[in-house]
Amino acid sequence: MQKPRDKKYITLSDLAQRLGCPFEGDPQTQIYGFSSLEKAHKGDLVFLAHSKYRNLLEKTQASAAIIPEQEQCERIPVIKSSNPQKSFFKAVEYFFKPYRPPAGINPRAVVSPEAKLGKDVSIGALAVVGDGAEIGDETVIFPGAIIYPRVKIGRQCVIHSKVSIREEVRIGNRVVVHNGSVIGSDGFGYTQTEEGHRRKIPQPGTVVIHDDVEIGANSTVDRATLGETAIGRGTKIDNLVQVAHNVEIGPHCVLAAQTGIAGSTKVGQKVITGGQAGIADHLKIGDHAVIAAKSGVISDVPENTMVAGYPHMNIKEWRQTWASVRHTRELIRELRKLKKRVEELKKQKS
Amino acid sequence: MQKPRDKKYITLSDLAQRLGCPFEGDPQTQIYGFSSLEKAHKGDLVFLAHSKYRNLLEKTQASAAIIPEQEQCERIPVIKSSNPQKSFFKAVEYFFKPYRPPAGINPRAVVSPEAKLGKDVSIGALAVVGDGAEIGDETVIFPGAIIYPRVKIGRQCVIHSKVSIREEVRIGNRVVVHNGSVIGSDGFGYTQTEEGHRRKIPQPGTVVIHDDVEIGANSTVDRATLGETAIGRGTKIDNLVQVAHNVEIGPHCVLAAQTGIAGSTKVGQKVITGGQAGIADHLKIGDHAVIAAKSGVISDVPENTMVAGYPHMNIKEWRQTWASVRHTRELIRELRKLKKRVEELKKQKS
Amino acid sequence: MQKPRDKKYITLSDLAQRLGCPFEGDPQTQIYGFSSLEKAHKGDLVFLAHSKYRNLLEKTQASAAIIPEQEQCERIPVIKSSNPQKSFFKAVEYFFKPYRPPAGINPRAVVSPEAKLGKDVSIGALAVVGDGAEIGDETVIFPGAIIYPRVKIGRQCVIHSKVSIREEVRIGNRVVVHNGSVIGSDGFGYTQTEEGHRRKIPQPGTVVIHDDVEIGANSTVDRATLGETAIGRGTKIDNLVQVAHNVEIGPHCVLAAQTGIAGSTKVGQKVITGGQAGIADHLKIGDHAVIAAKSGVISDVPENTMVAGYPHMNIKEWRQTWASVRHTRELIRELRKLKKRVEELKKQKS
Repeated sequence: MQKPRDKKYITLSDLAQRLGCPFEGDPQTQIYGFSSLEKAHKGDLVFLAHSKYRNLLEKTQASAAIIPEQEQCERIPVIKSSNPQKSFFKAVEYFFKPYRPPAGINPRAVVSPEAKLGKDVSIGALAVVGDGAEIGDETVIFPGAIIYPRVKIGRQCVIHSKVSIREEVRIGNRVVVHNGSVIGSDGFGYTQTEEGHRRKIPQPGTVVIHDDVEIGANSTVDRATLGETAIGRGTKIDNLVQVAHNVEIGPHCVLAAQTGIAGSTKVGQKVITGGQAGIADHLKIGDHAVIAAKSGVISDVPENTMVAGYPHMNIKEWRQTWASVRHTRELIRELRKLKKRVEELKKQKS
Repeated sequence: MQKPRDKKYITLSDLAQRLGCPFEGDPQTQIYGFSSLEKAHKGDLVFLAHSKYRNLLEKTQASAAIIPEQEQCERIPVIKSSNPQKSFFKAVEYFFKPYRPPAGINPRAVVSPEAKLGKDVSIGALAVVGDGAEIGDETVIFPGAIIYPRVKIGRQCVIHSKVSIREEVRIGNRVVVHNGSVIGSDGFGYTQTEEGHRRKIPQPGTVVIHDDVEIGANSTVDRATLGETAIGRGTKIDNLVQVAHNVEIGPHCVLAAQTGIAGSTKVGQKVITGGQAGIADHLKIGDHAVIAAKSGVISDVPENTMVAGYPHMNIKEWRQTWASVRHTRELIRELRKLKKRVEELKKQKS
Repeated sequence: MQKPRDKKYITLSDLAQRLGCPFEGDPQTQIYGFSSLEKAHKGDLVFLAHSKYRNLLEKTQASAAIIPEQEQCERIPVIKSSNPQKSFFKAVEYFFKPYRPPAGINPRAVVSPEAKLGKDVSIGALAVVGDGAEIGDETVIFPGAIIYPRVKIGRQCVIHSKVSIREEVRIGNRVVVHNGSVIGSDGFGYTQTEEGHRRKIPQPGTVVIHDDVEIGANSTVDRATLGETAIGRGTKIDNLVQVAHNVEIGPHCVLAAQTGIAGSTKVGQKVITGGQAGIADHLKIGDHAVIAAKSGVISDVPENTMVAGYPHMNIKEWRQTWASVRHTRELIRELRKLKKRVEELKKQKS
């Protein structure tokens, strides 16, 4: 349960109006917060995502629920929605604002006199903003974040504690980077000497993060060798994801936790990867492709296809293959039996 | 070898008494430190885990050894134990205390006047403790750790450098978090708009870490969408592990490095995962289950079972399957041969 | 394109001389920067790695190109090299120096009076250098890096922001550690009590990083239980890599991103691992072995072999196995057919 703060509440009828949805029950019902069906207390709003959770609705302690249009409920006041989840999270935004420190430069921040700061920027204690860095209006740099020299960050971004943004990286507007992520570390490029030693290839390229991207915690995006590693507009990246040098990710992709994308691979738009998926280097992943969790992609993936496994296959082939593969032991036995039978037939013949 | 500091030593007889074990050899033997059998020098204590390493014991430079009860050793003084490893590490604790900074608030820490600090707390240089945070007695916050507002941390915890603990997270007593881990970053939750863009689902939930948990370096534990992501009492989490939003992990689990657990999965008690294991979302993992390294778990795992592979199978089935699968090529050849033979039989018949 | 800074340029003939290569075209051609074939502008140097990219050379806007000795080019001035990539990156080093802060101790760094600093060391703002730490000549500690007490770091090292180097770790010369990596966190070692709880094994060991090692972003190297976790000379480690306690990695290895190596495994020299590879504990990986991406290595790997898959196999066997395995479904069908045919034969016989 989320504790009501300062007893701020909204009435059922006001909330229904905000959500543009019809309601049933006492219009004066006071809603102080929100919760899940199981854990709700008096004052909470809950939602019923699907009729299969109906029994939880019958037992919930909540004061009101958002339910699908076709559902009925006599127990508690309800708001009816064609998309209860969506309406519920819209309601949540009425009660909940994520924590943001106030605008202003903390006296214990270390901001270069050669940095350019926009209006209403917040720079937390012990954050560092390097020479020639530019921070757009209303952007929040949390305590302990490190912005290297000549970085450009747009408007209304949120850079959490312990993030490192390396020299010359460019970040769009409304980008969120969670704690500990590193943007612009050197690409992993070496040539080999005759003795088999590795000699570093310089990495003068950079990283460009487009508008509305969100990057989780402790992820890494390497700078390009030449040119730019790019993350397209609206793309969402989970925790502990690796994006190697010169990778280009299109707009509106979703990369689940611990995904790794190797160097120079081009990922189209609206591509989805499951957790721990890996994509080899220099590949093309088509628009709308889905890479299942744990896949190991070793060649190009056409658009609108879903793949799984390592080596990756079309998801249908992968499922059929594994359904079959589990019978291999049996197959070996049966083949042996059949061989015997054939031998017997042969003997009988002769 | 660990160098003796200030020539602090313990005699064989005193040590044996501390460990509650019998000894053989000169009771006045001076032990200054500890080491492994191979690398020991004069003054070191070593242990023999198993009789198969017996030959190392015959060559060790150590001054004393802890050996299994049934073993004999004439070369050097010994302590006999039913569990030499356990006795050895108990002895190690006599010589070795992990580094901890002294109690007190470093003048270069940034501690909110609205934070509540217990007795004998240590807050390192350049650590940040936010508004309304509570830090229990004898807890150590290392230099450069960041504690967001309204976090609660219990007694005798150790929070290493570069850790970020996000707003409102609650941590029990005697919890250790190693460097760079992030507790309470936003869950990875989005709805999809009609154009296929992603809209963030607010993440007002939090994380609860129970007593005696240890979390490795650069791991990530996301806050819940609603309610709490939970790590049960005594659970140990290795480096680079991902725990997604609303995951609930029971007590006394062990998660090896690079494990990933997707959203809302419930893990029972005393569950073990091997390195790079992945568990899909919304699953139940039964008590005492063992998930082998690199497994990809895609459905519930009953209690007391061990699974491996992706898609995961019972470990026995997985082993048998892979033993068979390696013969598939051979199988194809044999089937081809058998077909020919059957054809021949048929011809001969007609 | 890399923008020319201060209009610094080099002429074709001077550059060719520096590279020890012949050139063709106007010796006074001015080169201001470098780029890739596709993205070059006037003033840029490019290189042709292979004749298959020849068509890009015909369209490039670059002012000069480094091309293979046997290639011809009339369009633009060229330098001919037996290794165009190598020559190109040597040329890049003329224009590009990676960003390094100036020598000196930032007044907002926190340096213990008991630390020993070499000549021309750079310690950034909000970096912490603990008691008894030693930092060699010309080493750069970036803002916000944390050096625990009694750490030894050699000459000309670069330690980026947000790195944590734990107590007593020893680092050689010319070592680079990218942002967020953790060197020397506790090994993941526990004994089990009778109730199935975990009791921490003390981790008094340390980590030794030899000369010329580079470690990527957000990687983790655990300290040894006893003795040392070791990374050999010249070894290169990518982002998000896990190296567990007591692992010993030989010289000149290359570990790609998200690789994990479990406790006490010994890796030879010049070993290569692909991304997301995992190696179980207590194994030996021979010199020059190659572990393909996503492999799960469960037993020793002999020298000079390449393995793939989980459980790992020789790469050749793995390829053949997967080529066959995809036919398992077909195999089942064919076996069924053949069985029928044999049944028919039998009937006809009788």
